[in-house]
Amino acid sequence: MKVYLAGPEIFLPEAAEIGARQKAICRKYGIAAHFPLDSSVDIAGLAPQDAARAIFLANLEAIDAADAVIANMMPFRGPGMDGGTAFEMGYAHAKAIPIYAYTNDPRTYLGRSRALGLVARVDSGGKSRDVHGLEIEDFGLVDNLMMGCAVGGPAKPIFWHGAQGLDTGLTMFEAAVQAAAHAFR
Amino acid sequence: MKVYLAGPEIFLPEAAEIGARQKAICRKYGIAAHFPLDSSVDIAGLAPQDAARAIFLANLEAIDAADAVIANMMPFRGPGMDGGTAFEMGYAHAKAIPIYAYTNDPRTYLGRSRALGLVARVDSGGKSRDVHGLEIEDFGLVDNLMMGCAVGGPAKPIFWHGAQGLDTGLTMFEAAVQAAAHAFR
Repeated sequence: MKVYLAGPEIFLPEAAEIGARQKAICRKYGIAAHFPLDSSVDIAGLAPQDAARAIFLANLEAIDAADAVIANMMPFRGPGMDGGTAFEMGYAHAKAIPIYAYTNDPRTYLGRSRALGLVARVDSGGKSRDVHGLEIEDFGLVDNLMMGCAVGGPAKPIFWHGAQGLDTGLTMFEAAVQAAAHAFR
Repeated sequence: MKVYLAGPEIFLPEAAEIGARQKAICRKYGIAAHFPLDSSVDIAGLAPQDAARAIFLANLEAIDAADAVIANMMPFRGPGMDGGTAFEMGYAHAKAIPIYAYTNDPRTYLGRSRALGLVARVDSGGKSRDVHGLEIEDFGLVDNLMMGCAVGGPAKPIFWHGAQGLDTGLTMFEAAVQAAAHAFR
C-alpha cells in the first residue's frame, strides 16, 4: 500500500526530519509513504514559476500513484486549513483516492473563527458573519464543507486531539495512518 | 458551453443577487453558468452534516457537468484563498476541466503575507517564515503553487486589478469569462 502525505509540514525548517518520522510510522503499518519533498525534482537554476510547475506536476504524479492520501487539516494562517492541501484533497477525491485526515485543532470552523475574533455580527437568521459580511459556515465540520465531506463519517473519521500547535508527537497522524492501513487490509 | 462558478461569493448576504449578475455576464458570451446556490438541494429539516453532504454532492455534480470552472481566488480570512474553492479547483483539475481564475488582489502570496505582517523573520537562506517557523512560499504566484499552477500561464492568465475588497464591479470576473468563452469558441 502507498500513501501520499499532504499537509503544511513541508514548510517547516525541519520538514525533512518530520517527513522521515512520518514515513517511519507508515512503515510500521506496512505502508510506503511519499512525502512531497521525496520527489526528485531538480529545481536548481529554474525560474520560480518553472520550479513551481515542476513541483506541482511531481505532487500530482505522486497522488496518482497513491492508494490513499493522509491529510493534515490543521488551521493555517487563519481559521481554515492550508489551501494547497485542500487542492490536493479535491484532486484525490476526483480520482476516487480515499483521504484519511487529522488535525491538531478539535474545534469546528465556526468555533475556531469565533476564538480568532472573526465573528463581527450574528444576523437575524442566526448566521455568524465576518467583517466583510461573509457568512461563517456552520455545519459542525472542521473546515469548509467541501473538505469536511470528502473526509469524516464513521468509515473515515477525522482524527484530532485537544492540544494546539503542530502535532509534533504525530499521534493523530498515526491514528489516520492506522485507519488507512485497516481499510486496505 | 457550461461553466461552474467557484468562489466565496456564496457567503455574501447578497449571494443570490451576485450570482444572478454573474450568470447574466456569462449569458452575454453564450455561456450557461451554474452558481452553487442554483442547485435544487432541499436541506430543510436535515441535520447540519447531512445538509453539508447534500450541498457537497450537488457542487461536485455541477462541476462534473461543466466545460470550465471560473474561480475567484481573492484572499479569504488570511493571506490565502477560500479553501472550499481550492478544493473545487483540485477536483476540476483532476477531471481535466480547465479553470479560469480571477482575484481582486494583484499581490503575490508572499507580498500579501508581508502586508498582513505575517513575516516573522527571514532565514539565512533568504526564506520568509511566519511566527510558527513555517516558510511563506515565494514562487511569484498569487497563492500556493498547487492552485497557482492549475491556472495561470499565457493560455489561462489570472485576471486581477489593483482595487482591494470584493470585485463587485465584476470586471475581473468578466475578463475570466471572456477568456473561457474565447478558448471554447
